[in-house]
Amino acid sequence: MKAEIISIGDELLIGQVINTNASWMAEQLSLAKIEVVRITTISDTREDILQSLDDAFLRADVILITGGLGPTRDDITKNTLCEYFDSKLLFHEPSFRYVEKLFRERGLPILEVNRKQAEIPHNCIPITNKNGTAPGMWFEKEGRVFVSMPGVPYEMKAMLSDQVLPELTKRLNGLHILYKKILTQGVGESFLSEMIKDWEEKLPDHMKLAYLPQPGIVRLRLSGTGSDQEMLSKELDEKVKELRVLIPDLIFGYGEDTLEEIVGKLLKEQGKTLATAESCTGGYIAHLITSIPGSSAYFTGSVIAYSNQIKAKVLGVKEDTLMAHGAVSEQTVMEMAQGVKNKFGTDYAIAVSGIAGPDGGTDQKPVGTTWIAVAGPSSTMAEKFLFGKNRKRNIRLAAVTALNKLRMMIAKNNQQ
Amino acid sequence: MKAEIISIGDELLIGQVINTNASWMAEQLSLAKIEVVRITTISDTREDILQSLDDAFLRADVILITGGLGPTRDDITKNTLCEYFDSKLLFHEPSFRYVEKLFRERGLPILEVNRKQAEIPHNCIPITNKNGTAPGMWFEKEGRVFVSMPGVPYEMKAMLSDQVLPELTKRLNGLHILYKKILTQGVGESFLSEMIKDWEEKLPDHMKLAYLPQPGIVRLRLSGTGSDQEMLSKELDEKVKELRVLIPDLIFGYGEDTLEEIVGKLLKEQGKTLATAESCTGGYIAHLITSIPGSSAYFTGSVIAYSNQIKAKVLGVKEDTLMAHGAVSEQTVMEMAQGVKNKFGTDYAIAVSGIAGPDGGTDQKPVGTTWIAVAGPSSTMAEKFLFGKNRKRNIRLAAVTALNKLRMMIAKNNQQ
Repeated sequence: MKAEIISIGDELLIGQVINTNASWMAEQLSLAKIEVVRITTISDTREDILQSLDDAFLRADVILITGGLGPTRDDITKNTLCEYFDSKLLFHEPSFRYVEKLFRERGLPILEVNRKQAEIPHNCIPITNKNGTAPGMWFEKEGRVFVSMPGVPYEMKAMLSDQVLPELTKRLNGLHILYKKILTQGVGESFLSEMIKDWEEKLPDHMKLAYLPQPGIVRLRLSGTGSDQEMLSKELDEKVKELRVLIPDLIFGYGEDTLEEIVGKLLKEQGKTLATAESCTGGYIAHLITSIPGSSAYFTGSVIAYSNQIKAKVLGVKEDTLMAHGAVSEQTVMEMAQGVKNKFGTDYAIAVSGIAGPDGGTDQKPVGTTWIAVAGPSSTMAEKFLFGKNRKRNIRLAAVTALNKLRMMIAKNNQQ
Repeated sequence: MKAEIISIGDELLIGQVINTNASWMAEQLSLAKIEVVRITTISDTREDILQSLDDAFLRADVILITGGLGPTRDDITKNTLCEYFDSKLLFHEPSFRYVEKLFRERGLPILEVNRKQAEIPHNCIPITNKNGTAPGMWFEKEGRVFVSMPGVPYEMKAMLSDQVLPELTKRLNGLHILYKKILTQGVGESFLSEMIKDWEEKLPDHMKLAYLPQPGIVRLRLSGTGSDQEMLSKELDEKVKELRVLIPDLIFGYGEDTLEEIVGKLLKEQGKTLATAESCTGGYIAHLITSIPGSSAYFTGSVIAYSNQIKAKVLGVKEDTLMAHGAVSEQTVMEMAQGVKNKFGTDYAIAVSGIAGPDGGTDQKPVGTTWIAVAGPSSTMAEKFLFGKNRKRNIRLAAVTALNKLRMMIAKNNQQ
């Protein structure tokens, strides 16, 4: 099955907006085993829309169109779709009711343009827009499926994931497709794939695993196809459960969660507090934590001790320790964690000291050498890591690793 | 003049890579008054390349192609270009010499594939790739210009900016086009445009100003066209000089500089040191500063005082001050700046305290209220800002504003 993506919008053609919609859609389609053969970005004009629909018709089974449906600009797109599909615009009551409800909840008045947005070609199947005012439209023509969706990313993403993609796979294969996303931290993609090789090999034919790596994090996407949606969902859950037994420490969450959100939730639930002492990460861990709304409930603050003097003076790291072992050492990072925990009076503390690069490495401690400590109510642990040569990447890797080590300690303390 | 962009690459069609190249090119072309009528992303196959070249030929005067030129994958693209332009591959000695030099400098051995990369269609004009091994290729056919460039962003960007775009504007208009980018911080786009209205209106017809806003920063792009490149460059410099007189405090740099780089350079040059005391920015300022290699030469560290207790205990803010004025106040932020400066023994200090949101606002101090203080060797200043409702944006705005206030104080002290 082949798909083509048509992005409508002048803002894309002048480079004002990067076409992240198309990449995201391409990724979703690829994971659903639908091959994307072309992505075309065009202007908001009748001629361009008609020509690209004609061209796409010859190449693809499914044509996904985004954009051109905003309240002030949907005339051209919708009228052109009417022309192409030999249709006429009709007021669609349920779509309008939905918008009315949305506006009422937000305390906004309904405008004439919103009423107009509920006008759709009579021969399309409307797709509910749960996050906005422009409904999506599903057309069929000589065995091809055409879907027109708004260009607002979160409106389009919800439509595609929840309605269009399931319907596409079901209609065209007679099958449902479901996903589970498992978030892991701690080992790289190739090492992880070694660890779960047996499990992966034993996956039934109707399930597939995809690795989606980011710096420091590997997301696993388990997809399955089947005719019985409920049964399929249970089967996938069963497989995720097996995985959780296999790599309990590496899995930090599911779906679209971030480590900083999960750590924040854990601390909040248990009424515990946190401080950080950062050297090479230079405040990045604190920044991640405080980017979450409400983090002041559990985060008291941080000491960024970039110079050794500050490590000694503010965090209370012993001069002897620094002299004997250096700033990037187990002893120093343990004293940093305990120092900030005592000083800030928190339940937990993270400390990081490393050589982020590009300079500052030695034979014994090359660039990328990083010590991470986590101090909790009853114990302090420290671990050494050797990251790479890239400064920004090293900072990112150290931060997500430290957050995951903290998550593991909180989870362990919670079980006891 | 109309342009079309063709991006070649399967990694784009499976959504693994976002097509930022196309957006960047579209922006550059738009600024040079070349209208982009379509962006097409295709697979690395002979059929797709030939078809998209044929289609583009009918629509555009200039066709820019990126991708498909990597050392292991350039066979298809180059052979297809040969077929389309009725050409044959020839070894291009100067391109190879350039690669040889590059590899020698990097201490790398030349491989057979690198030799093959220096083979180009005989009837194209080669474009030197200053950052990689694949030369660009400039073709002409029945009045249309076709340019093929590598897909590696920094290789393509240098080629387009330094060679292709100047040549395009010169060839097709008989004119040179030059840019100066001026970086400002402190006021928004509309306010800035009011401030420099008279200057902008007096710009000669062959100069144009574009506003490129980012959160907290407005980049101004002054472009000029002319037949005499040297004279044009002088004219543009003259205009930038006028602007510098008009808004001396707002301009923090030129070109692609960042505020954290510029502040770092200033501190390093003058042998001065810096610490930060952050509340609502939660370590983001320290993170920006320490993302610059070598920042340990001037940055000693930071106290992130998220809770009031830490403001008092670690930074020495008086309990009375917190009680009487609150954490988000002139008095508190001044004491935070002075406190961290004394404690860390630095020449300069930044302090920020505000309500980042989404919660925590009051009638007197709504979400977005932010106090920023800068302490220097001889004085401390504080200023109040009212940013918006978005947490991440407020953190970013507070950070760039604080860095710019610091930059202004250092520059002022330097003049005295």
